Amino acid sequence: MAVAFLHHPFMSQAARQHFDSAALIDAMLRFELALADSEEHHGVLPAGTSDALRRHLSDHAFDLEDLEAGTTLGGNVAIPFVRQAKAALPEALRGHFHFAATSQDVLDSALMLLSQTRLPTLLSLTRRCLTALAVLMDQHRDTPMIGRTLMQQALPTTFGVRAAQWAWQLDEARARLDDLVTARLPVQFGGPVGIHNGLEDGLTIMETLAASLGLRAPLLPWHTDRQPIHALITALDALAVATDKIASDVALLAQSEIGELSEPAGDGVGGSSSMAHKRNPVRCALIRTAAHHIHGHTATVINAASQPLERGLGDWHSEWTPLIESQQLLEGALTQLAVLLEGLEVHDDVMAARLDAPGVASRQDADSHHAQIDRILAHLAR
Amino acid sequence: MAVAFLHHPFMSQAARQHFDSAALIDAMLRFELALADSEEHHGVLPAGTSDALRRHLSDHAFDLEDLEAGTTLGGNVAIPFVRQAKAALPEALRGHFHFAATSQDVLDSALMLLSQTRLPTLLSLTRRCLTALAVLMDQHRDTPMIGRTLMQQALPTTFGVRAAQWAWQLDEARARLDDLVTARLPVQFGGPVGIHNGLEDGLTIMETLAASLGLRAPLLPWHTDRQPIHALITALDALAVATDKIASDVALLAQSEIGELSEPAGDGVGGSSSMAHKRNPVRCALIRTAAHHIHGHTATVINAASQPLERGLGDWHSEWTPLIESQQLLEGALTQLAVLLEGLEVHDDVMAARLDAPGVASRQDADSHHAQIDRILAHLAR
Amino acid sequence: MAVAFLHHPFMSQAARQHFDSAALIDAMLRFELALADSEEHHGVLPAGTSDALRRHLSDHAFDLEDLEAGTTLGGNVAIPFVRQAKAALPEALRGHFHFAATSQDVLDSALMLLSQTRLPTLLSLTRRCLTALAVLMDQHRDTPMIGRTLMQQALPTTFGVRAAQWAWQLDEARARLDDLVTARLPVQFGGPVGIHNGLEDGLTIMETLAASLGLRAPLLPWHTDRQPIHALITALDALAVATDKIASDVALLAQSEIGELSEPAGDGVGGSSSMAHKRNPVRCALIRTAAHHIHGHTATVINAASQPLERGLGDWHSEWTPLIESQQLLEGALTQLAVLLEGLEVHDDVMAARLDAPGVASRQDADSHHAQIDRILAHLAR
Amino acid sequence: MAVAFLHHPFMSQAARQHFDSAALIDAMLRFELALADSEEHHGVLPAGTSDALRRHLSDHAFDLEDLEAGTTLGGNVAIPFVRQAKAALPEALRGHFHFAATSQDVLDSALMLLSQTRLPTLLSLTRRCLTALAVLMDQHRDTPMIGRTLMQQALPTTFGVRAAQWAWQLDEARARLDDLVTARLPVQFGGPVGIHNGLEDGLTIMETLAASLGLRAPLLPWHTDRQPIHALITALDALAVATDKIASDVALLAQSEIGELSEPAGDGVGGSSSMAHKRNPVRCALIRTAAHHIHGHTATVINAASQPLERGLGDWHSEWTPLIESQQLLEGALTQLAVLLEGLEVHDDVMAARLDAPGVASRQDADSHHAQIDRILAHLAR
Repeated sequence: MAVAFLHHPFMSQAARQHFDSAALIDAMLRFELALADSEEHHGVLPAGTSDALRRHLSDHAFDLEDLEAGTTLGGNVAIPFVRQAKAALPEALRGHFHFAATSQDVLDSALMLLSQTRLPTLLSLTRRCLTALAVLMDQHRDTPMIGRTLMQQALPTTFGVRAAQWAWQLDEARARLDDLVTARLPVQFGGPVGIHNGLEDGLTIMETLAASLGLRAPLLPWHTDRQPIHALITALDALAVATDKIASDVALLAQSEIGELSEPAGDGVGGSSSMAHKRNPVRCALIRTAAHHIHGHTATVINAASQPLERGLGDWHSEWTPLIESQQLLEGALTQLAVLLEGLEVHDDVMAARLDAPGVASRQDADSHHAQIDRILAHLAR
Repeated sequence: MAVAFLHHPFMSQAARQHFDSAALIDAMLRFELALADSEEHHGVLPAGTSDALRRHLSDHAFDLEDLEAGTTLGGNVAIPFVRQAKAALPEALRGHFHFAATSQDVLDSALMLLSQTRLPTLLSLTRRCLTALAVLMDQHRDTPMIGRTLMQQALPTTFGVRAAQWAWQLDEARARLDDLVTARLPVQFGGPVGIHNGLEDGLTIMETLAASLGLRAPLLPWHTDRQPIHALITALDALAVATDKIASDVALLAQSEIGELSEPAGDGVGGSSSMAHKRNPVRCALIRTAAHHIHGHTATVINAASQPLERGLGDWHSEWTPLIESQQLLEGALTQLAVLLEGLEVHDDVMAARLDAPGVASRQDADSHHAQIDRILAHLAR
Repeated sequence: MAVAFLHHPFMSQAARQHFDSAALIDAMLRFELALADSEEHHGVLPAGTSDALRRHLSDHAFDLEDLEAGTTLGGNVAIPFVRQAKAALPEALRGHFHFAATSQDVLDSALMLLSQTRLPTLLSLTRRCLTALAVLMDQHRDTPMIGRTLMQQALPTTFGVRAAQWAWQLDEARARLDDLVTARLPVQFGGPVGIHNGLEDGLTIMETLAASLGLRAPLLPWHTDRQPIHALITALDALAVATDKIASDVALLAQSEIGELSEPAGDGVGGSSSMAHKRNPVRCALIRTAAHHIHGHTATVINAASQPLERGLGDWHSEWTPLIESQQLLEGALTQLAVLLEGLEVHDDVMAARLDAPGVASRQDADSHHAQIDRILAHLAR
Repeated sequence: MAVAFLHHPFMSQAARQHFDSAALIDAMLRFELALADSEEHHGVLPAGTSDALRRHLSDHAFDLEDLEAGTTLGGNVAIPFVRQAKAALPEALRGHFHFAATSQDVLDSALMLLSQTRLPTLLSLTRRCLTALAVLMDQHRDTPMIGRTLMQQALPTTFGVRAAQWAWQLDEARARLDDLVTARLPVQFGGPVGIHNGLEDGLTIMETLAASLGLRAPLLPWHTDRQPIHALITALDALAVATDKIASDVALLAQSEIGELSEPAGDGVGGSSSMAHKRNPVRCALIRTAAHHIHGHTATVINAASQPLERGLGDWHSEWTPLIESQQLLEGALTQLAVLLEGLEVHDDVMAARLDAPGVASRQDADSHHAQIDRILAHLAR
């Protein structure tokens, strides 16, 4: 665990709470109770079992230190979680709790549940950024600026087009993540080796369970089929790239010598410990840092995605932190980006003056800058 | 460039040819001629221009050494390619070649064109693997074997289910790539700074161009919007994970002490330079190596995906080799996997004997092993 | 921040405390006071300044929430830290605090200081593992076992040699890290743009400062020269590889069908939430997970290691968490490895029986197994 | 294999030749003949054997296509190489060729041999860059320029100091690689499972072998101890970072609006396919691309560095191409960097004019800019 003030400023604090220990315990418990519901519904557990379990466990205070210690002993938190829950139950109910389930069922499902309920925040933050970009496109549809390739002045474009191209890639990344959210993340339920040992009809129980949790019922359990995780982490990474692209462009255009953009002014934002005159593009730095970390997490997950036989040995375990932190970091980056775009200072006079400089080709009327903006505005307005 | 016999054995040789120098030149030329068609069609170039260009260039022999030298000077091959092509044209036609286009238009489009025409081979190889898996599922629907979690014996499953779970994840990865192929990769056309400077209606020209090349017309040019590349390389990576998972499982189950599977026997396959009695799981090693390399390529691409302003400076350039090699490696891995699965030796007697050993829980009848197989067979038969 | 019980079990808890918020504040304060000492010593600050600063600040309670909020505003914690410290000082002293220093001086130095004092723990844990391996080498110098290449039985070796080869690579990685620790990590001190603006002789002040903190004085400030960080993270990564290699081998040799090794038995260690008969190689899983995470952190750091001009923009910021967590994770992995090796159960009867099986070549007397063990024992005994 | 003109321009062509197929075959043959020398010297092979082998094989033309095909069958090139060599020998000599060796002995040793003889070129190219930097430091010891942090103007520094700081980090990276070259890369020799089965005194034979090849004799064979590879690839990566840092800074300072540096002018260098007025920082782009690829290769190698038991299964195989290409790419980057630095255009008038602008703090005399330059010049002159 890194030091709070070295790590948290790159994250959304709301997202940190959404994924805290209490939330994960609650999600694991929701899985177990929904499983009991489903098993009771399909006649596997006696009538009334799930209500009884719910009664005993809903307000149970799990011992967090014991969960942490138990994870060290057993390798995952589901083991001490199930043990603590059973200890809180009367003898007769114990055998009905976590029935026919395995550790990975609980933990994968809990992570998917928390993600499924938090990913919409990423999507709405992205839409907030897109709205801010639509305003910029509209305001700057006729704000000429020089285009730069290989970081050299090339030919004129407009700031409206720059904003449109930012918006388009942000929306592509949003759509990729939106597809996963809309299809819903999968519930996990397969039992010890993935074939629902002990159940006549495990797949049906899985389907009822998925529906009650608001998750997708996959065709099969996916204990060592990490395609859903791969799709999720790489979609998050794509969105991180889109935020990084905008932040990096803003930082380039905010260079002292270019001065075409500035981050929104704000009390205390962008100060320096040694130089009072500076105004640092701090939000850009925060966004870029989040993106770098998400790339590292993505590397961890894709290198651990091929997992042996019926359960991973250190590879499954490697997914947890990257998966959670990538969401917390991306929500942080998008929050910063929304503020950045909503208050972005566009120095159109500087942009214009630059185009008048000798040696700079002036903007030609015959190009598609209006068409590009109109197209993206229409696309976003769908 | 690595040594041929250290690098090529992990690749499909057919894919190597598909992406060789001649093929890339041909694809660049196809782009330029289709662009001239489109520009002529929309009245930007005089009637007859594109036929004239085609006549002069269709059989032109480009100078490969000069292309390589020119890339070193200019940073990308489109620069010397355009120069050579113009030199081969009569004076009057030169201004009509590559009209209103930029280097990245040619090269991105050529790479997308070659990929769009080769990705279907990956999909059909994957389907060939799925067909082999369907046979295994069917043959082994009642072949019990021990399931193993954290590489320890756990509870019984069947080999049919193992094959079904392999198939399911392979098919998920296939579907992800299939979506990209079906939507088609995007053409690139934006001109020097991405707004079609000099053209009244660049977006329409882009659309006609895309249609004639069999590519998708994106909403906007994507010179520094690398979302399409990110989506492609991570989809390839996901498929690489699915091949690695199967190969790694086969290698584990083929260990001398487990002996439940063997790679297909073949003349000279799997021999050792020092131990005549050995039969190494060589195909598994080849597949795993390809997957490792694809992960490295993916890391390169996602770390370079945020590119500055209107054109990257070393980041765009970083995509080319990873993008091509990942396809060549993945096609190699899938080719090996198809042969591996089609000839896989399943030692059901060894599997069965292991379940009779003392201390091993015998398979319970009440589980969903048949249902899982039937579900995947039905899914694949759609 | 990931959930405690998903993240901390892979870390050393002592290392978590060593790098906690209070410790980092203390290290930053030690830097500032040592800087004042040095500046006073060299006549830059008036006599008595540093004692006065120490008196006012030694017991000052910094406001952690404000530090976190201030990091979000300014991009790094040094900014609010300096602000809080100055606010706690009488007017007359404020200008003498953090004199001629910049944020990165404080934070880089604090991170190096905490690392320099904690890395020896990694080295001593490694030596503890090596001691355990020496015992195994000695006990098993004549314990024959089958060697396995490409996970197939090959020719006989001995478990003593396996242990010697583990030890040799662990010691190579230890030596690489030891070299860095012995050379000491560098202090950071360059002032706002790295040339000690405002100081006649900044390099000398840097040298006195380094000596008083027990750090190395580098030739120059290294604000955007991240070679020391690159060397450190890759040395940590190398040691992580060595722990992963041993853990992975133990997991392979502990497979149910091989049964040549077992993790030490322990109350509650390696249990399953669904299968009472299992004994999972949990320590191996924990070690492998830590190594995977360290690889991801290393990827983050090396991809951010080229930093622009006089100060990074998101790249410097990307180093902090990976650098700290890699140490916490590696200390966790080595702690697990020490326990694993000290209690490793070696089933020499199983090893021996396997060599008697038909088809397995028996060990030849003429080989260097004793020599290898003796050589490593001698090497470790230096 | 990527297309030549997409891949080779980032590499040194001389380095490509150094590592071509013929060179690798030659290196493998040198290993085998030196092994026979050593074995004969120590009485393992009859007197005269090695001369006889040398006579038959020195001019033998190996069949490259068969080597490639054989690699696909056996997983590594040593298998068909040994087969072809034996087929070229008289019956009586066959048993003496590759005696007591394994595939990995030949291939690892050949790769180390080729690297050991090529790494000095990287070091001398680096020294050439350092010489160019020393000239810049000397010429610009009093060339003031603005320092920039977070890409914002901060306080003045000098270009001499910028060059000194570039030099210092380049030299740190050089020293790290130099240490490996000076200690020499290790020979590989362990026989089938790493204990020299069949030899009385394998370690002594290994030592004689190492000495005759100019390689280091490691304490033990290192078939699955990849610490030497990890140390090498990460040292190459560190040097790549140092080249990237300089190239990225040059590209930033060469931006049209900053204009403080330009790449050396050259016929055809930096042209654009669409904009005649542009002068692109092409060498910077080439260097940055090489560095990105080396980071990807490093990720591949460190993720494959933990290898199972006595021989890897796809992990060892994953090292070959990254190891070779990283050297070829780095040699390319350093070659470009040397030319870039030797011809770098420093616009000191632009630098000076910028410091006169209103709002820019002027350079203070009291700082250590001369001292920094003198210190590095002295350091480089050792």
